[in-house]
Amino acid sequence: MDMDITGYLFYLVPAASLVALLFAYIFYRNMLRQDEGTPKMKEIASFVRQGAMAYLKQQYKVVVIVFLVLAAVFAFLAYGLKIQNGWVPFAFLTGGFFSGLAGFIGMKTATYASARTANAARSSLNKGLKVAFRSGAVMGLTVVGLGLLDISIWYMVLDYFINPEDISQKLTIITTTMLTFGMGASTQALFARVGGGIYTKAADVGADLVGKTEAGIPEDDPRNPATIADNVGDNVGDVAGMGADLYESYCGSVLATAALGASAFIGQGGMQVKAVFAPMLIAAVGVFLSVIGIFLVKTKENAGMGQLLKSLSLGVNFSSVLIAIFSFIILYALGLTHWLGISFSVLTGLCAGIIIGKTTEYYTSHSYKPTKKIAESAQTGPATVIISGVGTGMISTAIPVITIGVAIILAYLCATEFSADLLSKENLSFGLYGIGIAAVGMLSTLGITLATDAYGPIADNAGGNAQMSGLEPEVRDRTDVLDALGNTTAATGKGFAIGSAALTALALLASYIEEIKIALLRVADTSGLEAAVRNLNTESLALESKEALHNAGFADFMTWFDVNLMNPKVLVGIFIGAMLAFLFCGLTMGSVGRAAQKMVEEVRRQFSSDKGILDGTSTPDYARCVEISTRSAQREMIGSSLLAIAAPVAVGILLGVSGVLGLLVGGLSSGFVLAVFMANSGGAWDNAKKFVEEGNFGGKGSYAHKATVVGDTVGDPFKDTSGPSLNILIKLMSMVSIVMAGVTVALNIL
Amino acid sequence: MDMDITGYLFYLVPAASLVALLFAYIFYRNMLRQDEGTPKMKEIASFVRQGAMAYLKQQYKVVVIVFLVLAAVFAFLAYGLKIQNGWVPFAFLTGGFFSGLAGFIGMKTATYASARTANAARSSLNKGLKVAFRSGAVMGLTVVGLGLLDISIWYMVLDYFINPEDISQKLTIITTTMLTFGMGASTQALFARVGGGIYTKAADVGADLVGKTEAGIPEDDPRNPATIADNVGDNVGDVAGMGADLYESYCGSVLATAALGASAFIGQGGMQVKAVFAPMLIAAVGVFLSVIGIFLVKTKENAGMGQLLKSLSLGVNFSSVLIAIFSFIILYALGLTHWLGISFSVLTGLCAGIIIGKTTEYYTSHSYKPTKKIAESAQTGPATVIISGVGTGMISTAIPVITIGVAIILAYLCATEFSADLLSKENLSFGLYGIGIAAVGMLSTLGITLATDAYGPIADNAGGNAQMSGLEPEVRDRTDVLDALGNTTAATGKGFAIGSAALTALALLASYIEEIKIALLRVADTSGLEAAVRNLNTESLALESKEALHNAGFADFMTWFDVNLMNPKVLVGIFIGAMLAFLFCGLTMGSVGRAAQKMVEEVRRQFSSDKGILDGTSTPDYARCVEISTRSAQREMIGSSLLAIAAPVAVGILLGVSGVLGLLVGGLSSGFVLAVFMANSGGAWDNAKKFVEEGNFGGKGSYAHKATVVGDTVGDPFKDTSGPSLNILIKLMSMVSIVMAGVTVALNIL
Repeated sequence: MDMDITGYLFYLVPAASLVALLFAYIFYRNMLRQDEGTPKMKEIASFVRQGAMAYLKQQYKVVVIVFLVLAAVFAFLAYGLKIQNGWVPFAFLTGGFFSGLAGFIGMKTATYASARTANAARSSLNKGLKVAFRSGAVMGLTVVGLGLLDISIWYMVLDYFINPEDISQKLTIITTTMLTFGMGASTQALFARVGGGIYTKAADVGADLVGKTEAGIPEDDPRNPATIADNVGDNVGDVAGMGADLYESYCGSVLATAALGASAFIGQGGMQVKAVFAPMLIAAVGVFLSVIGIFLVKTKENAGMGQLLKSLSLGVNFSSVLIAIFSFIILYALGLTHWLGISFSVLTGLCAGIIIGKTTEYYTSHSYKPTKKIAESAQTGPATVIISGVGTGMISTAIPVITIGVAIILAYLCATEFSADLLSKENLSFGLYGIGIAAVGMLSTLGITLATDAYGPIADNAGGNAQMSGLEPEVRDRTDVLDALGNTTAATGKGFAIGSAALTALALLASYIEEIKIALLRVADTSGLEAAVRNLNTESLALESKEALHNAGFADFMTWFDVNLMNPKVLVGIFIGAMLAFLFCGLTMGSVGRAAQKMVEEVRRQFSSDKGILDGTSTPDYARCVEISTRSAQREMIGSSLLAIAAPVAVGILLGVSGVLGLLVGGLSSGFVLAVFMANSGGAWDNAKKFVEEGNFGGKGSYAHKATVVGDTVGDPFKDTSGPSLNILIKLMSMVSIVMAGVTVALNIL
Repeated sequence: MDMDITGYLFYLVPAASLVALLFAYIFYRNMLRQDEGTPKMKEIASFVRQGAMAYLKQQYKVVVIVFLVLAAVFAFLAYGLKIQNGWVPFAFLTGGFFSGLAGFIGMKTATYASARTANAARSSLNKGLKVAFRSGAVMGLTVVGLGLLDISIWYMVLDYFINPEDISQKLTIITTTMLTFGMGASTQALFARVGGGIYTKAADVGADLVGKTEAGIPEDDPRNPATIADNVGDNVGDVAGMGADLYESYCGSVLATAALGASAFIGQGGMQVKAVFAPMLIAAVGVFLSVIGIFLVKTKENAGMGQLLKSLSLGVNFSSVLIAIFSFIILYALGLTHWLGISFSVLTGLCAGIIIGKTTEYYTSHSYKPTKKIAESAQTGPATVIISGVGTGMISTAIPVITIGVAIILAYLCATEFSADLLSKENLSFGLYGIGIAAVGMLSTLGITLATDAYGPIADNAGGNAQMSGLEPEVRDRTDVLDALGNTTAATGKGFAIGSAALTALALLASYIEEIKIALLRVADTSGLEAAVRNLNTESLALESKEALHNAGFADFMTWFDVNLMNPKVLVGIFIGAMLAFLFCGLTMGSVGRAAQKMVEEVRRQFSSDKGILDGTSTPDYARCVEISTRSAQREMIGSSLLAIAAPVAVGILLGVSGVLGLLVGGLSSGFVLAVFMANSGGAWDNAKKFVEEGNFGGKGSYAHKATVVGDTVGDPFKDTSGPSLNILIKLMSMVSIVMAGVTVALNIL
């Protein structure tokens, strides 16, 4: 296959993007055409919608300021100090814009869909499923559509403008430049996840503590002043936050792999182009398969829970199996060197995602032993619930870590076609490319997996709407079934999210080395080779010529910078990285605690100042609770987010390249394990409570139930604030390091 | 100073050992001469003593079997397969024996001392302090005495027997051989910490849950069937466990540093001997200073709490300041190369220990804001107590990690005398030696710091004895003051324990490379150089000659084995290491949960089957509770302990040397952060409860108090089982890797 056809194949990427956005639009219009139900339902939906939009408006105000400041810093570094790529400020801004847009569209859809889902559920379970799932699909398709759009446009722009003297460097420069729009996406995602996570859990914890525990009124009761805020929270945290998060993973994995491809096949002309296009094409084909998969999700009228799950799985499995097959076809058609091995790397990623998802389900679903044991321990009170939940969450990290470990080794080995000299310069490049493409494989069907994930909060909100509107109890029962179904599919979705974050972060680690190389070449170009070496304070950087720098591989950089485990800078970097994961969680947990406390005080105040609220004779002041959550979330998100951005820069300046690599590896390894622990503990506590509510160990209102409510409340920030924010932390730290590579090269102390 | 005088100086080490053991014996005899009080007091003390001894007997039975099996494996490896040093089985057994003996003596002393402390407290606070503190000193001096004894004997034996062909290798072989007795000590320590930790917290949690929460009877009430088991637990967990733990840290830091000294000064004859003796001599002088410090601890009659604390601090500060000064003198007198810089490394270690101790105090004492905030959050119930406690614990990891990071860099830089070429082969050796000696500095005054630590549980038990014997309330008040004082000094002690574990583990990491070198030389000797290279499956191990192997430094091994952060084996190793820390904690938390559940059921059964127990008319069946704790602890400790031993072996076989190094670094970094988090969360919850009990936020019996009791119960396994066991896990994994280096070299797959 010659170069030209490869060139044409590229247009599959923008085409897939437009197809995804088109179907997202169609599903959105179809959803809007559904009836929103009774006036009461409309009113409640509009409360939630207004609250969510008000929050997002406030959030984006803060984020815009942060973005403008950072973009100005990047512009100064690029045009003032000339130590950074000039495209960075623009790439950074578009990444942030598209990521925010994906979250906004997803949330807007969700807030329109919840009452319509509840209304559809009045006629049948199946109708409810269809409205909710298709609305979730809007989010899934918007994320992948906007992601591929951003990638396509930037590729075409840079391909036109970037034509370096040394043309063999063209693709390397293009791909490493494109990576920097990932930092925009990461930054946006972090604010969305942290801010949304604090919002939703402050409202949830606050509503539960006073409502359920003190006043003894059920969940989503309209008498609870925090209940609207709670429902708004599901939208801003679980929908907008998750959308921005996965937008970032999706783009990050594709871009990092493209950069690794450009590096692995440097100087090989057409083959290099193929390696850069391969991850984009796999993602593009994944979009087409996702759209087909979404249409496969439908059931007969009066379908039961089992059938619903089967129908959802059918769509996802269809897309997964076909993308595995198509990966072999795409890579064969491209004629990529090692195409067979690299195809198996894609398969490795897919399988790892599925195994992690199934493990998550095992540890968090109350159909299995671990969660049942937590419920059982509730008989001896809240302390034993917490102890056993923490224990279970920690134990649950074993299989995901081993799976990711095996996937890393296998993806690496497959991509090198099991070469005997595993760590040669060439094989290291192939192997790292293999790890990157495994992440792409894992995320290629995001269009549909995210749909199954995003529909959960819609069903959850539909339930809230049904409750508050006083609909017939069977409607609430139906939305509960949809919600429970969502929890099961969400477990798999979370597996993909965290697993892909780990693999993507690894690929970004390698891309960081590439950026350092580019930055060194820039210094060598402007101030000569000696200046580059002197700048780095590294005597062992034994660079004879610019040629040597050009041709350097990962292994050379490891030697030049002494990035080995006996280097104290690497060791200290690893320690600090591990600590940052904990510190970041601690700060976000603290934020939730403080924000929830404010909410509790407000709810208590309203209950005591107007006795009519609990009797149901006067309406509580919902807006005030929404405002408290919004303000707390905004105030609290700044500190922890800035920490994530500042830490890699500070370590880079103090400890140089080897320290930064240590930091990233330490943060990645501890952050991954901590994220799995927190997500699974939180999930297990949630379902242990549900298990008791189903009538086990005394059922609702029993001593055991109260104990599991404590577990569930503790689990809320674990699984919905701190845990998922870690996904982004580990990627954002890599992205910041990549963007600030020029600064690290120019200034470093030790 | 010539070689001969250095030789004589060595005798300071056995001399210090004998002095320590002599004073330990004197203090023990003096304590026994005190009156044990009323018949009731004697009876209760004998219950506790019998329970503790029964537990230890059972524990040692299991441990002896494990030790014999492991020793047999080592003997087979050494004499059957000839891939291991022949001294290992014996060194392993003596390390385990002495470590167990230290724990046994400490515990025996503690169980005799508690009633005597209570009785002395009947006359005055000061008398109570003296009995308790001198009894704690028995433990401190026994640990350092036995540690130096083991080191002295083994050094003299090996010096006599080991005389290799190439005499320049003599000290390298001796020191790396001695290190393996550290594995015996680590294994013993792990069983003691894990078994004791499960025992004590099962009893504590069980006693609290039913006694305090359900039946509403106070702590240490004789009507509670689990109360004796609870008091036994303090002895087996906090005394015997801690003794074995610190015995291991103490010996490990001295031995690892000696091995690093032998490596740094290889081929330099007399200078090498000096470098090997330096850490031993610093430890020896530390013993003399500790003994003097112990005698300084006394107050006037009728001293208040402030004066008591001052008096304790006086002893510790005296020893710390003088050891800092003496380090300069010792190293100057030895005439060691870089003596001034290395002295500053010692100082760095001492300061780091103090900073970590103070930080621990800040985050866990209710005199400061963090713990007060946790207490405040109790007003909104147990869930917010847990959330804010977890948040605080996670945030509290920042300063200790940064302190250790700065200490690593400074100790390294000082030892290289701030050389410009920081990472040259020579400077790497000096720097790592500096890190090791910083750990020695931190632990040199263990004789007295451990005394202040070990006296806490004695005072705690004295309080229990006073309560159960129905002594006058002012006696309980006095023992409470002693107990509170112990909590403050224990915070500093914990800082030293975890900080020294991290530095020791780093030194062990470097020693691991030394062991690999020895193992490779052994293969080269028996089967030729090519076999050594082939065995390792590492093409990049470009070894030209045996000479090259002889002269290889750490940096060479890093290159040969590709121990850099882009090697997937290193990355996977780091991931698995991080995961193991969590898995290990999860397993031990689960064990405590299960064992506590059994205890709860037994206590409930006794209360319901004999109504007379709660009325105080019939005596509960204490023995049955002791038995339940013993059996549960024994059953539960096996799994997690074997995991810690098996994991490095499995990773070594699967992923080779680079994988093992990754595993150790991943386990060390995550384990350190996790240990600090768990210890500080647990400590803060404990003191938040005490703060409420002092009358804040409603005081005893209030809603807030009940919430803090939940926090305290959750914190128990955090701070007394899982957290401290991690200290040992990270050292034991290094020790296992060191001992199994021969196996890793002989067999590895990837």
